[in-house]
Amino acid sequence: MSLIEDLNWRYACKRMNGETVEQDKIDIILDAIRLAPTSMGMQIFKVSVITDPKIKKQILEEAAPRQMMIKGCSHLLVFSAYTKLTQEDVNEYIDHLGEVRNITGARLEEYRTKWSFLLGMSEQEIFEWSARQTYIVMAYASIAAASLRVDSTPVEGFNASIVDGILGLPEKNLRSTLLFPLGFRDSNEDHLADTPKVRKDIKDLFIF
Amino acid sequence: MSLIEDLNWRYACKRMNGETVEQDKIDIILDAIRLAPTSMGMQIFKVSVITDPKIKKQILEEAAPRQMMIKGCSHLLVFSAYTKLTQEDVNEYIDHLGEVRNITGARLEEYRTKWSFLLGMSEQEIFEWSARQTYIVMAYASIAAASLRVDSTPVEGFNASIVDGILGLPEKNLRSTLLFPLGFRDSNEDHLADTPKVRKDIKDLFIF
Repeated sequence: MSLIEDLNWRYACKRMNGETVEQDKIDIILDAIRLAPTSMGMQIFKVSVITDPKIKKQILEEAAPRQMMIKGCSHLLVFSAYTKLTQEDVNEYIDHLGEVRNITGARLEEYRTKWSFLLGMSEQEIFEWSARQTYIVMAYASIAAASLRVDSTPVEGFNASIVDGILGLPEKNLRSTLLFPLGFRDSNEDHLADTPKVRKDIKDLFIF
Repeated sequence: MSLIEDLNWRYACKRMNGETVEQDKIDIILDAIRLAPTSMGMQIFKVSVITDPKIKKQILEEAAPRQMMIKGCSHLLVFSAYTKLTQEDVNEYIDHLGEVRNITGARLEEYRTKWSFLLGMSEQEIFEWSARQTYIVMAYASIAAASLRVDSTPVEGFNASIVDGILGLPEKNLRSTLLFPLGFRDSNEDHLADTPKVRKDIKDLFIF
């Protein structure tokens, strides 16, 4: 299958049928997230992988009652952005970079000094910057899912504070930005399953 | 080739060799952008497709002097976000939706009423929301490029006001968020071409 076929197959699934996505497919989707490019390679995001039916139900009922696809999904990914960036985060990144690329001594310390400007950013700036990274990695997950014929739906319409509370994200300096149910479409119940995609023409999206 | 192979092949290319990306590959990359999911399907973003060497040079020199891959790219995409959402934008979207999905009369007017809440958003809210959408579509472009063995580099590090000025974006209620050169890696000149990817472990990115 070609990428464009995958992207035409994909749609924002509104009803899922309760079947469980196989673990090997989940592994590929998570690997795509891990391989996605992010700002300066820092990967400042986290993804909660929720399979517990009780937690899914609680999120559906308390934070996203109109997002019915959560009911029949087998895995609910919650993408979250950093609300703080600590010296430890920067050090971990630099140390890891040094290890993987075999950089040590003064050259590595140059990197550390260069990166320390990040610690001057405000919490709001960190959050907005990190939130944008979650949109990149969600996009990677959505293409990986489509290539495996797994359905997914990016969801912005939910109460983030409630989800954060349920998952204990604030204690980890995180705030949720996107819900992302994974499962299989219920074509009988989803009125959007067979409708044509609504997309602007090339001339309305691109400036040549 | 599998998606994971494509993603391992991809890296943030720092030097491009000046060869021109074939038009059929560009068409697929633009189509992937067009097919990407965005908030409520509204596609509130634009992409400037720059091939004029003079404009590329001006952007490189005046707005992004450290981003040397712009020198050898054949196409420079500039992703831009909306700074305003007008009644006309909403109407165009609703009318187009009605046309594609054959919805008319009172049902279409319901959509129009439902969507009008968007007009109450502040310009800053519109921009941040739209900016996030540009990160999704850039991610789609980057996977499409990798699947075609075309190199690309998402660039946040540039002076957006200068780029906006060069391209006349403010007059169109747009602000640039990402540069995205497309071309082919110059493996001799790019010290990153053969270095291993630096990525966090699964346990540091995912919360199970």
